[in-house]
Amino acid sequence: MTDDRIYTAALIIIGNEILSGRTQDANLAYVANGLNKSGVRLAEVRVVPDIDTKIIKAVNELRIENDYVFTTGGIGPTHDDITSHSIAAAFGVKVIRHPDAEKLLRDHYGADINDSRLKMAEVPEGSDLIPNPVSRAPGFRITNVHVLAGVPRIMKAQFDGVCLQLAGGKPVKSRSLVAHLAESVMAEELGKIQERYPSSDVGSYPFMRAGKSGTAIVVRDIEQVTVDAVIEEVRTMMTGFGVEPEVEVQL
Amino acid sequence: MTDDRIYTAALIIIGNEILSGRTQDANLAYVANGLNKSGVRLAEVRVVPDIDTKIIKAVNELRIENDYVFTTGGIGPTHDDITSHSIAAAFGVKVIRHPDAEKLLRDHYGADINDSRLKMAEVPEGSDLIPNPVSRAPGFRITNVHVLAGVPRIMKAQFDGVCLQLAGGKPVKSRSLVAHLAESVMAEELGKIQERYPSSDVGSYPFMRAGKSGTAIVVRDIEQVTVDAVIEEVRTMMTGFGVEPEVEVQL
Repeated sequence: MTDDRIYTAALIIIGNEILSGRTQDANLAYVANGLNKSGVRLAEVRVVPDIDTKIIKAVNELRIENDYVFTTGGIGPTHDDITSHSIAAAFGVKVIRHPDAEKLLRDHYGADINDSRLKMAEVPEGSDLIPNPVSRAPGFRITNVHVLAGVPRIMKAQFDGVCLQLAGGKPVKSRSLVAHLAESVMAEELGKIQERYPSSDVGSYPFMRAGKSGTAIVVRDIEQVTVDAVIEEVRTMMTGFGVEPEVEVQL
Repeated sequence: MTDDRIYTAALIIIGNEILSGRTQDANLAYVANGLNKSGVRLAEVRVVPDIDTKIIKAVNELRIENDYVFTTGGIGPTHDDITSHSIAAAFGVKVIRHPDAEKLLRDHYGADINDSRLKMAEVPEGSDLIPNPVSRAPGFRITNVHVLAGVPRIMKAQFDGVCLQLAGGKPVKSRSLVAHLAESVMAEELGKIQERYPSSDVGSYPFMRAGKSGTAIVVRDIEQVTVDAVIEEVRTMMTGFGVEPEVEVQL
């Protein structure tokens, strides 16, 4: 299902380990790319600590401003896993032990089930479960807020499942050109190209690698034909400055 | 200068390239670790697009809530570099061409100076410059908001300079232990340890790598003696579950 309006999402990364610098986030780019393919634009990301008031504030601000909210982290069995209770508080509902989640966990752990493991069956009342094909303990969705694990392998499996069901607009198309040219050389001409194509997003990203500096120009638009037209103008501009651009290898 | 209160900072990452998934952020962990050493805790991170209203809102919320705010990105010469104007709008001041910045740029570019390059001398009125030893175009500070480049090599050089001058509290000490134990096995005992040491932050981080799962327990406190005491309790607990923990290699 696609239409012409722009769908947006926000991502809330919950975890002291990201804010302390101990762990490098590995989920943001995956979520961004997956949403693009579903025609949803990632509009904002917040990284918040394991503090309920911070989580509640971020959820309540972002779920109103966006079509979708995703959270990662804080849904495990330990004392620092406070996401379920915080989301419930954000919605003003109580936390229940979801019968389907409890059954999943009891089947998975058998005789090794314990209270800490059963904590992973606790969700805000009114939630639907989000399957976890990797380690069973499910995520959940309440209205437009999707609560996922923090461990990247689990998060990705959960997110891929959710993505298949999202309503979105047209996916954003993009192409880019790279040239060993300073962006300040191109800036004026590039600004004019942006003005001629107001529907497009013309981004300029300087880089330094392997001792050489240059600029990547990335063009995004929901219409492929527009992306192609803008890219040709950028190419003409770059060759006008005496540099043959390279097509950027997409990661 | 150190005292006993907790100093906090927020980081605002400005850039469509992060939100689109094109670029993996490389600045968050560096800022977090640098702040830790200065006795400042990174309390929140936001990633916002190149849209002035979004930048203004984030700056004005976070500069009130925190001792320091850092922004990265959007201070180059192109049309999508709108950070200076957005920060000026957040403070309700006008943008001026800073004479010292203009001189730096004119000295650096010589005859190749142009209007786009001079745009990098534009800062909110009342700002101090933040030196850029890599490529000259400076960042700036206005009250507690520090505006840095997005390119990691430049950002790091600017940030290191700023860090030397920050007032902070006591740096946070941390140690961690890793065991091939599910966190749900340890959860109950770990919660009791956390209760006995309320000043400490006892984090539990499950992982899966190379086909083996396990949990890293990270203990943080401003007192090294407390960190050491908590780590010994965690070690005793892990060996009680029949697993000899490993000392985690810090990245």
